Amino acid sequence: MTTVPVSHRFVRYRLAQDRSSKIGLVDKEELNVAEVLGYADLFKLIEAHPSLASDYKFTTGEVSPLKSVEILAPLPGRDILCVGKNYIAHAAEFHKSGFDSSDKNEQPDFPVLFTKRATSIVATGKPIYTHPDVTSSPDYEGELGIILGKAGLAVPKENGWDYVWGAVIINDVTARERQRDHKQFYIGKSLDTFCPMGPYVVPSSSLSFDQLHLTTKVNGEVRQSQNTSELIFDVPTLIQTASMGISVQPGDIIATGTPVGVGMGMSPKVWLKDGDVVEISIPPLGTLSNPVTSTSPGVSSLFNE
Amino acid sequence: MTTVPVSHRFVRYRLAQDRSSKIGLVDKEELNVAEVLGYADLFKLIEAHPSLASDYKFTTGEVSPLKSVEILAPLPGRDILCVGKNYIAHAAEFHKSGFDSSDKNEQPDFPVLFTKRATSIVATGKPIYTHPDVTSSPDYEGELGIILGKAGLAVPKENGWDYVWGAVIINDVTARERQRDHKQFYIGKSLDTFCPMGPYVVPSSSLSFDQLHLTTKVNGEVRQSQNTSELIFDVPTLIQTASMGISVQPGDIIATGTPVGVGMGMSPKVWLKDGDVVEISIPPLGTLSNPVTSTSPGVSSLFNE
Repeated sequence: MTTVPVSHRFVRYRLAQDRSSKIGLVDKEELNVAEVLGYADLFKLIEAHPSLASDYKFTTGEVSPLKSVEILAPLPGRDILCVGKNYIAHAAEFHKSGFDSSDKNEQPDFPVLFTKRATSIVATGKPIYTHPDVTSSPDYEGELGIILGKAGLAVPKENGWDYVWGAVIINDVTARERQRDHKQFYIGKSLDTFCPMGPYVVPSSSLSFDQLHLTTKVNGEVRQSQNTSELIFDVPTLIQTASMGISVQPGDIIATGTPVGVGMGMSPKVWLKDGDVVEISIPPLGTLSNPVTSTSPGVSSLFNE
Repeated sequence: MTTVPVSHRFVRYRLAQDRSSKIGLVDKEELNVAEVLGYADLFKLIEAHPSLASDYKFTTGEVSPLKSVEILAPLPGRDILCVGKNYIAHAAEFHKSGFDSSDKNEQPDFPVLFTKRATSIVATGKPIYTHPDVTSSPDYEGELGIILGKAGLAVPKENGWDYVWGAVIINDVTARERQRDHKQFYIGKSLDTFCPMGPYVVPSSSLSFDQLHLTTKVNGEVRQSQNTSELIFDVPTLIQTASMGISVQPGDIIATGTPVGVGMGMSPKVWLKDGDVVEISIPPLGTLSNPVTSTSPGVSSLFNE
């Protein structure tokens, strides 16, 4: 699928005996992870390498089997920027669903940007909590997340790609009636565990953005399958809009919108429920796999792992 | 106006010869600030004292004349929660203005929550930039900001006040046509310099929340004047809503909405322009005073001072 060799594929992780997190490079076969030395976290690594060359050699330390480590959310602690209704067929399914209180038109005239709270971020493997006391319509949204590499303000569209450091998979989990009833999407999008992120972050030098294909499966059944470049507002337009009066920062993530095929668009509508497993794949960003639970994980923190 | 003696009134500040910031206690006469020792910032102080008793004695160091120090934004670096349309007369002026694309009803059925980006935060005294390339309708919104004192999830309404650590003034500056056109408020609310905050943070033990009065002046002319307890959704309801599925954190701020009297509601509409001065006062939280400029301050950062 991807024509560019993957030179760098990063994870944030923790060894079984450790409390602190490390960052590492995953090998081509996804068998081992080598600790990357010299950076406190992936934000610091991105700031140090705003345009990471594919032949850059990091200093590495201990190598561990990938399946022996706990993979953590790669870029935690900062609210995530998201784009609403950015694929034509999804805009149609949302518009017809009865859950779109934001717009009388099917497709937006301007990019629709909102945020998910940092406390909603969880790693691959961690449960998505259905919040039965808050919503009866939890739904998945598989998305390509763009990671920005440098600070910028009023970035012209023609320079947009220069600001893209790389990419990560985001599941923009949504409580549909909360998204509708509170008018602004914040609450419906920000419930604890509603932002699975990862497993890998991959720099632009290892990606062909026009050849990334997203597949979302629920319990093994394919629900979403689309090339992530088929956007209503393309990546440079999103960066232009996000930065036109707001200074973007290295490590900021823009989740670029979800393609058609969410549970809200099915007939009858199908919501996430206890025991489901949601898997979102975008080679070479890996597979973001999260079980669904109706058991509360308790109070989240800003840097919940 | 306020019946409770002000035992603690905090500022974050910087001495002329320093690069780093300090936190301090302002005296009753607002003449001097005494450095508070032992806390890296106000977030840490709040975490250490989730319910600050009015007779608690902090260890203090150097005392400086208040007018000799640079006052900084007290709680920077985290996106700010805000409430839309939360005073009856303001909901009416917004509804009639033609700028409300979020709701067909004048008053909301559920609290409307959204966020302002951390990069928009500025201190008292710093300019509000009008962003002439982005908006032709910059407008002020004087608001009481509630500061949360502890982490919580699904906080019952009857316990809401237990989570309120104190308060701060927020100017929820807004680009009206951007708020309208992008449907979600994020962009119109998050432009750089659009979140003046401060000058003081005052704990609940020094406040009578039902007796706080907000006054907003533009160039000395009173535009907003209202008791901040006259909310459609009261503070315990806002905390219940903000936390019903989202873990709130110590130091989180909820700007509780603006009363009637914004520029959008005037006839004809009046927008902020170069040379204006916006002053928002809520005794004893001080006066948040910001000049307005059409000269760009350049790229902002996550912790711009």
